[in-house]
Amino acid sequence: MYSGLIERLAVENDSRILLAVVDGLGDISIPELGGRTPLEAAETPNLDGLAAGGALGMHIPIAHGVTPGSGPAHLGLFGYDPVEYEVGRGVLSALGVGFPLQHGDLAARINFCTLDDDGVVRDRRAGRIPTEKCRELVSLLSGGISMDDVEVHLMPVKEHRACVVFRGGELSGDVNDTDPGLVGQRPVQVRGQGRTQDLVREFLSRASEILRGRHPANCILLRGFALYSRFPDMGERFHLKPAAVALYPMYRGVARLAGMEVMECDPETLQGQTAAVSRAVGEGRDFVFLHHKPADSSGEDGDPVAKISAIESFDRALPGLLELGFQVIAVTGDHSTPCPMKLHSWHPVPVLINGGPQRTGYSSAFSERQALDGSLGTFRSTDLLPLLLASAGKLSKFGA
Amino acid sequence: MYSGLIERLAVENDSRILLAVVDGLGDISIPELGGRTPLEAAETPNLDGLAAGGALGMHIPIAHGVTPGSGPAHLGLFGYDPVEYEVGRGVLSALGVGFPLQHGDLAARINFCTLDDDGVVRDRRAGRIPTEKCRELVSLLSGGISMDDVEVHLMPVKEHRACVVFRGGELSGDVNDTDPGLVGQRPVQVRGQGRTQDLVREFLSRASEILRGRHPANCILLRGFALYSRFPDMGERFHLKPAAVALYPMYRGVARLAGMEVMECDPETLQGQTAAVSRAVGEGRDFVFLHHKPADSSGEDGDPVAKISAIESFDRALPGLLELGFQVIAVTGDHSTPCPMKLHSWHPVPVLINGGPQRTGYSSAFSERQALDGSLGTFRSTDLLPLLLASAGKLSKFGA
Repeated sequence: MYSGLIERLAVENDSRILLAVVDGLGDISIPELGGRTPLEAAETPNLDGLAAGGALGMHIPIAHGVTPGSGPAHLGLFGYDPVEYEVGRGVLSALGVGFPLQHGDLAARINFCTLDDDGVVRDRRAGRIPTEKCRELVSLLSGGISMDDVEVHLMPVKEHRACVVFRGGELSGDVNDTDPGLVGQRPVQVRGQGRTQDLVREFLSRASEILRGRHPANCILLRGFALYSRFPDMGERFHLKPAAVALYPMYRGVARLAGMEVMECDPETLQGQTAAVSRAVGEGRDFVFLHHKPADSSGEDGDPVAKISAIESFDRALPGLLELGFQVIAVTGDHSTPCPMKLHSWHPVPVLINGGPQRTGYSSAFSERQALDGSLGTFRSTDLLPLLLASAGKLSKFGA
Repeated sequence: MYSGLIERLAVENDSRILLAVVDGLGDISIPELGGRTPLEAAETPNLDGLAAGGALGMHIPIAHGVTPGSGPAHLGLFGYDPVEYEVGRGVLSALGVGFPLQHGDLAARINFCTLDDDGVVRDRRAGRIPTEKCRELVSLLSGGISMDDVEVHLMPVKEHRACVVFRGGELSGDVNDTDPGLVGQRPVQVRGQGRTQDLVREFLSRASEILRGRHPANCILLRGFALYSRFPDMGERFHLKPAAVALYPMYRGVARLAGMEVMECDPETLQGQTAAVSRAVGEGRDFVFLHHKPADSSGEDGDPVAKISAIESFDRALPGLLELGFQVIAVTGDHSTPCPMKLHSWHPVPVLINGGPQRTGYSSAFSERQALDGSLGTFRSTDLLPLLLASAGKLSKFGA
């Protein structure tokens, strides 16, 4: 809303905040659940208890009608305007596979593709080769390409998708996609700033040599070039000592982008995550981001029963988290992933805040319907962090 | 929202608007009131009647999570973006004691403090000397300091707090605090623009001479230097003839800052205020701001019973105000002052508008809960004035 205002007002104190993100939490009415959402249909006595003693609301991840990717959706919850702090697709791909990006790295997405004998793109996805094949080709490219001035890191992603990171010297993110976007055209010539253009062209020509004849994946297309720039640190911005407890590389990467300490989790279960949250608290962290993935995955699978079960497992883990001495607890999703859509969506996301001075007694359970009538109202995702800081007494007054 | 749009559309007509601000009106659930707020618990037949025949909503004073001081909170209600029109703390202090600031005045807050023999700050508040002592010391300083090029005006505030205004010639507000912020350090050297730096240093050295040996208040610290700049006049901006009826210097000062005519009140009671509102109407004023302080004071005292009583006295004064011929009446707070917090807070504030074409029949009483479900919805405080102008037929159509 007001650039820099929250940073100016933020103060340190001893209160601790837990932000638990149930990924893809929001949903829409599902006929086989009698018109309820998975959150409404799930048995969640612990969430309902927090709702009854706290305050509910709805957050809008980016803007009305705008569906967010996971990166921007989380950045909003961390207090970073996701449009101002836009993260390039190449960077998100590298974060998503857990590559430890450094300031100045240039990242891009790779699609394996099929060219015909005239060099014209016949399939932009090389027949969606299996992930195994992708790994093999990436390994072949990694072994065959080494360049003088620059490190080249190649990582498989899924099916025909991989990614590449260039590291070393001054690189520029201003490089066009080589993917023509349609079949029947040649790959687009690389244009960019001097040295960056040269090395991307050289990389492409070596990759083409190695892949030549390996139908259907006989070439690559590059997309979403992006330079990785460190963000202003969340801890410094808001006078917090933030930590992240997430199992998936993507979310660990986004947390690292915001300057959070990323905790190790062993075993990789909710129990292991609870233990990691406890360790973070023990180390003096006063803002812990906990990420619970399965609700999103089941939404993308279009499986309401699995989504209910994912929400219920989180609910069962809550008592263990509540024992760890947080003054303020928030539970929300990064975005909605409605089962009938099998996709992320723009629908507002229910939020629960328990702890600190709140208008209570408006809600009896945590659900989309009650969140819309909750005492917090509807707000943008970037307003959540200020509300949490205020609830924890970590925001001073504006003016006298 | 859109800079300059409301100014472009505002037109004059014969309708009159009353904006009654019950200071600190909003609250949170209070256990000893059965989970109700003071507004919900108060007997307010007149407010409830206005609510039933009008429209309710909630306003957000600055931004989600941001707690406003009284100055910025009121400016928002007068249609001034409180962050864009930020008022320095020195200026608010001088307004707060009723000093008639002029354009170009330089104001700062004074803390009496205790220095040890080495000139190190031992107590930043001089043991919180009583207000009586503060008055005596301010009088001593006023009598002892006169400077060549500039008028120096000194005013006691409360306990160890006072304020100073420099007037004359070109002054700059870009002067650092001399308060080191912690004990065990020397006061910070004054740095500023040439002439301003010289005169503030000279002022400080004379004050130090006068206070030397007067333990515990043997020196002063200066904070919150701010230049007073006239704001664009509310009357000109919105084609209004605005008047203010407020008993406390702070609110009279903020009203003056917005260019309102400030009415005299005698006696200084709600009856006296009602008579002043009547006089303002008689003089052709078509926008009257009425300020009712006691709800805020009892919130800061943490006294829900006193807050209920403050709200009920305002309710009893309403019929007298309703007789004065306003076409549109709004009742709201500048911010919330929840009794359990004993502080201003960030919680949205209930608003009532009666008069003009409204969606009615949504509400039966004026309360936080009904305001959240009211037909006006939730909006930023700066949107209230446009809604009042529109309700009074004072905003023309945008486009054809």
